[in-house]
Amino acid sequence: MIKAGIIGSTGYAGQELVRLLLQHKEAQIIWYGSRSYVGEKFRSVFGNMFQIVEDLCQKDDLHTLCREADVIFTATPQGYLASVLEEDILSHCKVIDLSADFRIKDVDVYEKWYGIHHESRQFIEEAVYGLCELNREQIKGARLIANPGCYPTCSTLAIYPLVKNHYIETKTLVIDAKSGTSGAGRGAKVPNLYCEVNENIKAYGVTSHRHTPEIEEQLSYAAGEPVVLNFTPHLVPMNRGILITAYADLKPGVTPDMVRQAYTECYRDEYFVRVLDEGVCPETRWVEGSNFVDVCPRVDTRTGRVIMMGAMDNITKGAAGQAVQNMNILFGLDETEGLRLVPVFP
Amino acid sequence: MIKAGIIGSTGYAGQELVRLLLQHKEAQIIWYGSRSYVGEKFRSVFGNMFQIVEDLCQKDDLHTLCREADVIFTATPQGYLASVLEEDILSHCKVIDLSADFRIKDVDVYEKWYGIHHESRQFIEEAVYGLCELNREQIKGARLIANPGCYPTCSTLAIYPLVKNHYIETKTLVIDAKSGTSGAGRGAKVPNLYCEVNENIKAYGVTSHRHTPEIEEQLSYAAGEPVVLNFTPHLVPMNRGILITAYADLKPGVTPDMVRQAYTECYRDEYFVRVLDEGVCPETRWVEGSNFVDVCPRVDTRTGRVIMMGAMDNITKGAAGQAVQNMNILFGLDETEGLRLVPVFP
Amino acid sequence: MIKAGIIGSTGYAGQELVRLLLQHKEAQIIWYGSRSYVGEKFRSVFGNMFQIVEDLCQKDDLHTLCREADVIFTATPQGYLASVLEEDILSHCKVIDLSADFRIKDVDVYEKWYGIHHESRQFIEEAVYGLCELNREQIKGARLIANPGCYPTCSTLAIYPLVKNHYIETKTLVIDAKSGTSGAGRGAKVPNLYCEVNENIKAYGVTSHRHTPEIEEQLSYAAGEPVVLNFTPHLVPMNRGILITAYADLKPGVTPDMVRQAYTECYRDEYFVRVLDEGVCPETRWVEGSNFVDVCPRVDTRTGRVIMMGAMDNITKGAAGQAVQNMNILFGLDETEGLRLVPVFP
Amino acid sequence: MIKAGIIGSTGYAGQELVRLLLQHKEAQIIWYGSRSYVGEKFRSVFGNMFQIVEDLCQKDDLHTLCREADVIFTATPQGYLASVLEEDILSHCKVIDLSADFRIKDVDVYEKWYGIHHESRQFIEEAVYGLCELNREQIKGARLIANPGCYPTCSTLAIYPLVKNHYIETKTLVIDAKSGTSGAGRGAKVPNLYCEVNENIKAYGVTSHRHTPEIEEQLSYAAGEPVVLNFTPHLVPMNRGILITAYADLKPGVTPDMVRQAYTECYRDEYFVRVLDEGVCPETRWVEGSNFVDVCPRVDTRTGRVIMMGAMDNITKGAAGQAVQNMNILFGLDETEGLRLVPVFP
Repeated sequence: MIKAGIIGSTGYAGQELVRLLLQHKEAQIIWYGSRSYVGEKFRSVFGNMFQIVEDLCQKDDLHTLCREADVIFTATPQGYLASVLEEDILSHCKVIDLSADFRIKDVDVYEKWYGIHHESRQFIEEAVYGLCELNREQIKGARLIANPGCYPTCSTLAIYPLVKNHYIETKTLVIDAKSGTSGAGRGAKVPNLYCEVNENIKAYGVTSHRHTPEIEEQLSYAAGEPVVLNFTPHLVPMNRGILITAYADLKPGVTPDMVRQAYTECYRDEYFVRVLDEGVCPETRWVEGSNFVDVCPRVDTRTGRVIMMGAMDNITKGAAGQAVQNMNILFGLDETEGLRLVPVFP
Repeated sequence: MIKAGIIGSTGYAGQELVRLLLQHKEAQIIWYGSRSYVGEKFRSVFGNMFQIVEDLCQKDDLHTLCREADVIFTATPQGYLASVLEEDILSHCKVIDLSADFRIKDVDVYEKWYGIHHESRQFIEEAVYGLCELNREQIKGARLIANPGCYPTCSTLAIYPLVKNHYIETKTLVIDAKSGTSGAGRGAKVPNLYCEVNENIKAYGVTSHRHTPEIEEQLSYAAGEPVVLNFTPHLVPMNRGILITAYADLKPGVTPDMVRQAYTECYRDEYFVRVLDEGVCPETRWVEGSNFVDVCPRVDTRTGRVIMMGAMDNITKGAAGQAVQNMNILFGLDETEGLRLVPVFP
Repeated sequence: MIKAGIIGSTGYAGQELVRLLLQHKEAQIIWYGSRSYVGEKFRSVFGNMFQIVEDLCQKDDLHTLCREADVIFTATPQGYLASVLEEDILSHCKVIDLSADFRIKDVDVYEKWYGIHHESRQFIEEAVYGLCELNREQIKGARLIANPGCYPTCSTLAIYPLVKNHYIETKTLVIDAKSGTSGAGRGAKVPNLYCEVNENIKAYGVTSHRHTPEIEEQLSYAAGEPVVLNFTPHLVPMNRGILITAYADLKPGVTPDMVRQAYTECYRDEYFVRVLDEGVCPETRWVEGSNFVDVCPRVDTRTGRVIMMGAMDNITKGAAGQAVQNMNILFGLDETEGLRLVPVFP
Repeated sequence: MIKAGIIGSTGYAGQELVRLLLQHKEAQIIWYGSRSYVGEKFRSVFGNMFQIVEDLCQKDDLHTLCREADVIFTATPQGYLASVLEEDILSHCKVIDLSADFRIKDVDVYEKWYGIHHESRQFIEEAVYGLCELNREQIKGARLIANPGCYPTCSTLAIYPLVKNHYIETKTLVIDAKSGTSGAGRGAKVPNLYCEVNENIKAYGVTSHRHTPEIEEQLSYAAGEPVVLNFTPHLVPMNRGILITAYADLKPGVTPDMVRQAYTECYRDEYFVRVLDEGVCPETRWVEGSNFVDVCPRVDTRTGRVIMMGAMDNITKGAAGQAVQNMNILFGLDETEGLRLVPVFP
């Protein structure tokens, strides 16, 4: 039985981790960390856990926790883990970080986009970017997993096959993303109030969203050359779900069949990435509550462009689900353990 | 392995049955019945099932099906099962009917409220009303289960302890109910369009909703005398969930402590009925996607009234979940098998 | 041209006042008061006002304002106006208070339900309760209008005809109310976040909501005797709208025709109260953005009860619209000036 | 007083026309055409019109209507007007067509994208494309106005300044659009049911949406050369609103200041097009219920691209509002008459 501790268990991603780990046969939660609710019952914060979880929320004490736990999940604000991580912790247990602190290899890029001084740069090198489908082998032996961002997970998986095969002109790449509101977190802010989000759609972080360099870095590895792109997220009045609509020019000679084949071959053995039938567009409702990513390309022969689409649950595969998937890989379990969830509809 | 057939698998309740049975260790779906989609892939109707279900939708052939299946679920319009049920079917397999056809013992009441001639009245007597928490013993040996309506399930469980203990004046009972829109079914009707339901709340079926006599019948058994009440449902702009707010005068001498104790004693051993802490109101979000019913009474000493509240997922405990719970009882399995689902939030 | 000042213009009710007054031919806004946004452009807080309002938000200075304005609207938290109101203000201009400070004549009741010490009890006596349809004559000469609460406006208008005619047993009266989320205000609180409200319905303030004594007081005047009732509000995932479903026993001998006639006679000359056709239930979507209140009774001869229903836009007729209606009466204008708004659908 | 007839008054755009014309000082509705509800009261279809409109719905009889009306609005399915339009009609009154029948000059393009044989090609030449801000002069003398599509209105206005100034490489143009669900119409179809749209976002009509050639045609006029682009609409769970996010490469030497100036100069005198402050992104909530289009460009110097954004109410400026604006121009009225609506929030 894997003993798991969660730091930041009372955010949306943290709570989803709880939901998933409770239904995981090989894991057990031993620590419900929460800065805001120390001493309160976890189930008084999240009523869905009534009569399921009786634990109290505990403060952040990584040095104690790392000696009791086999794995620590940090679902914490940017900069937190970097400010407290030490060799003592990593020498005692695995750490899966859901924040951005260790996702970007170039610390200057991190500091520029996040506006935060990175306080643990010595661990950046060894951290493994936990996009399971792409980095499965490196994950296996890692001590520190940088669990990918929600937008980067969906964007990268939706675009990867064509970049890897050098089928698109990467300099023409534009990613238009749409996310449910749980991605904005559980902080009490006016822009996230019901009446501000409901009956509205808007772009935000235009040209400056922090997930941009993360996506660029991952696609650059696939391309074998630097990829620079536009990434524009939008806030959608729904709880869960991310939809990616990406556009790029096809390279001369690339046919619709080649495009389709790139996807089917790339994801042939992947349980969680579903390449939809030709002509079917991904929809967030079909993945809700699950760890699936639905992808599908569409070639426009009229314009010579390909539209790459992907849909995913932002707090499952986009956060907590992928974190559990990483845990499964780290501990040699079936990668789908606890994650064979049938999407909930409607 | 229990072989299950579903008639009406492409409605919302039918699809939820599929979701639940796919995650059930002891059951296997062998028949996806659907009048509208015969010959089409089930997963082309419900994209969440892509790469999970590869079966085609089949026509309704109960006589064939009953020889292949151990249990048939009928998630069909009112009157359907009554029009086709025969001894041949019941002699071969169990039938769990999610429609109202066999819920009401007095066929005149059924015909009056539903405006349908009942074509199989010979089976009404033996049918067992499948409100598991109340009729567990009778369910065990039944051939035909009348799976309760969504409103009656939540209403009855929220009110039952006080009626059973004769703590309220039943003639003062008023039930004000609120339901998510999946309860209206998947039929293509203007009043159920997104723009008609969204940003709106309305009462419907005022004084005439068909679930009224079903609730009255069940509470009458508990009271040991006829119960007549007002039941007013409302349509809420959300997908899932039912909330019950019921009002009644307390009988003289009944104290808040007696009220509370009635609930805790009644549901002490029930996994799916959660009696909330004093002062906590049920909310539909805390039960979404699960088989829980959250109940809580509140006494108003100022008015001498008790407010009885209940929240439930209308297509899980209110339909498919309870149907699976009935199946578990019928086949001697752990009653919670396949149903220990942690509610999904947000 | 009436010069109007708004204190608390950056809440939802305040902003609606701005919308309405901008479209009012006889009024002009001269003061956009806001504690949180002093010095900021009003239209930077509410983007809908871009290129419509160029004013800056100003601090609360009632003594200056009362010398410049003909009328001051206070859309402020409970207790604010009572803490600052002085004769100097009322001697210079009219005050229409959208808070509860002067709604309840019995200050002990106010202090008990609100938990606030009332600091201006000397003005309670002269304040007129601004439910326009009932108190039109008293409003005309008033200096201080207590603009009614949202729930009390809809509840009172939906129930008044039967209480006034002594057609119902008032001790059996139960009001089950449902409101959109704008009623919760624009404060940054976790329970009002999009993901907390969306896909959920819950009761709140059960047995203790502050609008209870306000409704009781108004209905007591109509009944000529004390009315004590249960009032239970619910939070609905939509922006605007209040729906009232009220229940009471009819007195012996009261017929459906008498009930219907009570409504049609009572509201025959009212522009804003629409008595719906027999059998039609009020829906909040049909009044959105307007000052209408739709009401309709339904008698249940089976139970001897009447169900009284009402729908209204909580921030128009339930707050800002009624405040403008009060202004129109105070200044001798056509009562519908600026308020003949066709409801916006969908 | 302008006498207006509406064919197709019981769709969402038709009903919005009614709302707007009722609040228009110089117009009067004399004909509520509706195929589905002939003989029924208009207000029984749309309860918001109760006690406002007492007319019955009438059948489509353009030859009678054109003799009684000064202007006919056709808010009808594609192909309808083309199948019935005759010189007799146009010789008697103005026609403003909200369908696509006369928007596209090249009938082959129309027939290819719409899959409909055009039955009145003789009128295509004289029809004026009613995008008021661009074609004001031609509209003045027209008999037949092709009222633009919702997406084309918002897309064209958001992009036009940069195309007109030759600031972007039009062959790199990608339009990613998002629309509320009223755009899908009031037809009873499963994909438009509440539970199918709610909690979901999806792309549709990818590479094949019929508004594509309409946008291309208008931008081609502005560019002075053929423009070919990708247009991808998405369905958003909200009632009203369209958001456009368009991407293109800037031509060498074009600076952010030049881009901004192009917008401010282009729309300096336009009441309905609001060029937002630098750094502000359009949001659909800020235009809801109004005829405004909010636009704003953002240059990304890192990628050399410009992101052109626009927000609009799809059934006001995107349909009925622009139709009234066209009527105002046709009849020499102030262009904003009946349309100075303050957007409704929240």
